[in-house]
Amino acid sequence: MKTTPISRAVKRSLCALFASAPLLLVAAGAHATPASPVQVAESQRYERGIEVLRDLNNGQSQPVFEAMRKEFPFLADSTASYALGDVWGRQVLDPKSRQLAAMAAFAALGLRGFFKTHAGYALNMGASPEELKEIVYLVTVPAGFPRAIEASQALQELFAERGVRP
Amino acid sequence: MKTTPISRAVKRSLCALFASAPLLLVAAGAHATPASPVQVAESQRYERGIEVLRDLNNGQSQPVFEAMRKEFPFLADSTASYALGDVWGRQVLDPKSRQLAAMAAFAALGLRGFFKTHAGYALNMGASPEELKEIVYLVTVPAGFPRAIEASQALQELFAERGVRP
Amino acid sequence: MKTTPISRAVKRSLCALFASAPLLLVAAGAHATPASPVQVAESQRYERGIEVLRDLNNGQSQPVFEAMRKEFPFLADSTASYALGDVWGRQVLDPKSRQLAAMAAFAALGLRGFFKTHAGYALNMGASPEELKEIVYLVTVPAGFPRAIEASQALQELFAERGVRP
Amino acid sequence: MKTTPISRAVKRSLCALFASAPLLLVAAGAHATPASPVQVAESQRYERGIEVLRDLNNGQSQPVFEAMRKEFPFLADSTASYALGDVWGRQVLDPKSRQLAAMAAFAALGLRGFFKTHAGYALNMGASPEELKEIVYLVTVPAGFPRAIEASQALQELFAERGVRP
Amino acid sequence: MKTTPISRAVKRSLCALFASAPLLLVAAGAHATPASPVQVAESQRYERGIEVLRDLNNGQSQPVFEAMRKEFPFLADSTASYALGDVWGRQVLDPKSRQLAAMAAFAALGLRGFFKTHAGYALNMGASPEELKEIVYLVTVPAGFPRAIEASQALQELFAERGVRP
Amino acid sequence: MKTTPISRAVKRSLCALFASAPLLLVAAGAHATPASPVQVAESQRYERGIEVLRDLNNGQSQPVFEAMRKEFPFLADSTASYALGDVWGRQVLDPKSRQLAAMAAFAALGLRGFFKTHAGYALNMGASPEELKEIVYLVTVPAGFPRAIEASQALQELFAERGVRP
Repeated sequence: MKTTPISRAVKRSLCALFASAPLLLVAAGAHATPASPVQVAESQRYERGIEVLRDLNNGQSQPVFEAMRKEFPFLADSTASYALGDVWGRQVLDPKSRQLAAMAAFAALGLRGFFKTHAGYALNMGASPEELKEIVYLVTVPAGFPRAIEASQALQELFAERGVRP
Repeated sequence: MKTTPISRAVKRSLCALFASAPLLLVAAGAHATPASPVQVAESQRYERGIEVLRDLNNGQSQPVFEAMRKEFPFLADSTASYALGDVWGRQVLDPKSRQLAAMAAFAALGLRGFFKTHAGYALNMGASPEELKEIVYLVTVPAGFPRAIEASQALQELFAERGVRP
Repeated sequence: MKTTPISRAVKRSLCALFASAPLLLVAAGAHATPASPVQVAESQRYERGIEVLRDLNNGQSQPVFEAMRKEFPFLADSTASYALGDVWGRQVLDPKSRQLAAMAAFAALGLRGFFKTHAGYALNMGASPEELKEIVYLVTVPAGFPRAIEASQALQELFAERGVRP
Repeated sequence: MKTTPISRAVKRSLCALFASAPLLLVAAGAHATPASPVQVAESQRYERGIEVLRDLNNGQSQPVFEAMRKEFPFLADSTASYALGDVWGRQVLDPKSRQLAAMAAFAALGLRGFFKTHAGYALNMGASPEELKEIVYLVTVPAGFPRAIEASQALQELFAERGVRP
Repeated sequence: MKTTPISRAVKRSLCALFASAPLLLVAAGAHATPASPVQVAESQRYERGIEVLRDLNNGQSQPVFEAMRKEFPFLADSTASYALGDVWGRQVLDPKSRQLAAMAAFAALGLRGFFKTHAGYALNMGASPEELKEIVYLVTVPAGFPRAIEASQALQELFAERGVRP
Repeated sequence: MKTTPISRAVKRSLCALFASAPLLLVAAGAHATPASPVQVAESQRYERGIEVLRDLNNGQSQPVFEAMRKEFPFLADSTASYALGDVWGRQVLDPKSRQLAAMAAFAALGLRGFFKTHAGYALNMGASPEELKEIVYLVTVPAGFPRAIEASQALQELFAERGVRP
């Protein structure tokens, strides 16, 4: 995790370099031809989102996300470009605090699968299992006990998959 | 804020003292007679919640909360004892992270008044106005743009009341 | 309240009489001409809903409901015929239990205005102010503290309007 | 689909005929004895709902709905009479627009099964797979990305069952 | 069920006895050493919650709840002490009315598993299958048809498990 | 409304021209210096969103939106670029169908202010007041009567402001 901001900073300076050489960037883009300034920028936002996703996911790609790309290209693009690139790629909040806040929102809304995925990202961003449990406990107050209990069951699955002991 | 954990630690050691002298504690309790071990403990949980509330609220009491006590005593008691004392009084998560996560949950559920109150507590716990805005931005992803826009309006009110400049 | 089931039973036997004399019923219906069996039945469902509403509301009509009729006739009709007539007019559950359950649902969903209206009906159906408060307390568990606190504020308004003392 | 309004219109004129001959209608009703004007009208609303359901479902009955009738007769009756007959049987909005709007509401509320069923009806009412995807994309704005992603997964299942290619 | 309030009253007078002899109570507590008034009271609240749960559940323990204790001790404790002990252990509302109201809240929020569990408790508290169905029918009004249909499916499962015939 | 797609098409061909002359576009952009391909594209997405907003709003700017820009620049940018530009600027669904579907989602979620705003856009996009009412009626089924009644009240306000007669 500690290397992440650094490697990101490195990539950013590379981006700054590329910014004055759009053709190079286009070569790395997904939908590269024909090259227009918009496509460059769009593929850049997309690439940034994919980079954020890899950082969150310990360098691995998300299979669910890949499946979405074939049938729902706009949703895959906007999830990568907007949700991951624009929002999750912001630098003001540290990644661990962002994940804990996101977990609280997902749990409160009863979005169990998203809660579990982002709880896994929280572990990857340096949060401890004990801190994850605190989010579950906290959720009883704004959203009631059932949403917290559902979230605890999702965490139990995650901990079992990761080999986290109680 | 920095003095808070210290003063809390001091009160805790006082509590530890009181624990072996229940009658003294009862004397400080709200519903003091007749003294039973349960009443001691209940009033202790309640007092702890009130203390947490004062810490969050820069030493001031909450007028909304006071109004609730007369007509809905159980709700006031459980908000103080359980929500504030048991949950918000926990020590694993730092107070700023807890507030940011709580803000995300309140915003996602459309609980505008609670979002604003807890955003104010977040400022008191050392979060910057910029960090509060990040929670609003983040909420667009799990809960959509309207909940984020509502939350931004609540923050705007809070910032105006506190004299925070954009 | 106690006279309600009786007067309802009386009206029901009148209805049974009318049932074999549709023209009489049509004369009492709102949209009376031309008389077809469907119109008779529809106006009968509507009338039953209005009757249920008057029973809940201590014999008074609901001004909000009247306003809806001009611009949203289908919504007014279906609220009267389906929601009030078909559902609230059912006889298996006693009116007080139904109101308490409805209050819990409205509070859990954050429907404050509807919660307050139905809390008023609950009082009219014989529930005590203390029983209404229990619903508020209960709601903390399935739906969290904010929804319960909002409901307590709605009850506070209702109690003030009705002159109910803490 | 284009033949639907016509066949419906034909049935309506038949209904108009039956209206002056209630006994004939009662003979076709489900709960025919004893014949009262209300029962005639109720069974007519129910039949109209079942007709709407068959129109939406390409002439087939809904097995889920049939199962509901045995144990929850009032819910089955009101789903047919009110939801399908009264609401979905209305003529102001064209069936395709109604289905697209219903899909947006179901997706926003996280009602995945209902979303999928009504997406299937939307295809039957002439909506293209591309239009269905637009509803999914739109939902990111009012309800956030998770609800849209869930809806995209439901559409993926539907498209697979129907043999719709990306 | 009728024996429940009685046995509870008996246990209460025992509690009153224990209250003046804290050491005895501590002996029955879960986390007994070292004995402080707080621990006594906390374990008392916890025990009261477990007792409420057994009353609701016909004398049996809840396996889901037991699983929660190992990994999420605070959530298990607060569910027992606050949700079951403090809220469900209150005496103003009769147990059957409380269960019907809770069912309405769970169904309205789409909390199917909790709805089913509490519908089972409602049967144990003396509600008839017909009364349970009325809650489902009622839910169509505040929360729409899908939530009611989901609840009807949960009831169908419960009735099948309990051998309740339509 | 009929002129809208045409004027949009005209602007699009202008955009196509600009695309090969990025410097001109940058000149029209909000944050023009220094010119990088990303800024061009970002300001282009933003401008497109503002254009979509003006089309929806009969050529007028949205004061609420303008207020947001000063304190919550990222939220204003993403509302314009993503919500309005990327999503609402799509061409597969006709603007009227999109507005009706969006209204259904906003009403179902209880987002009354957003429902009213988008109902106004729906009128601007050629929907009739009668079609707007149908969305309200439809919402009773997926989301219950209270959300529909709230939406009817928002429409009543809109109709009064626009001088629409029942």
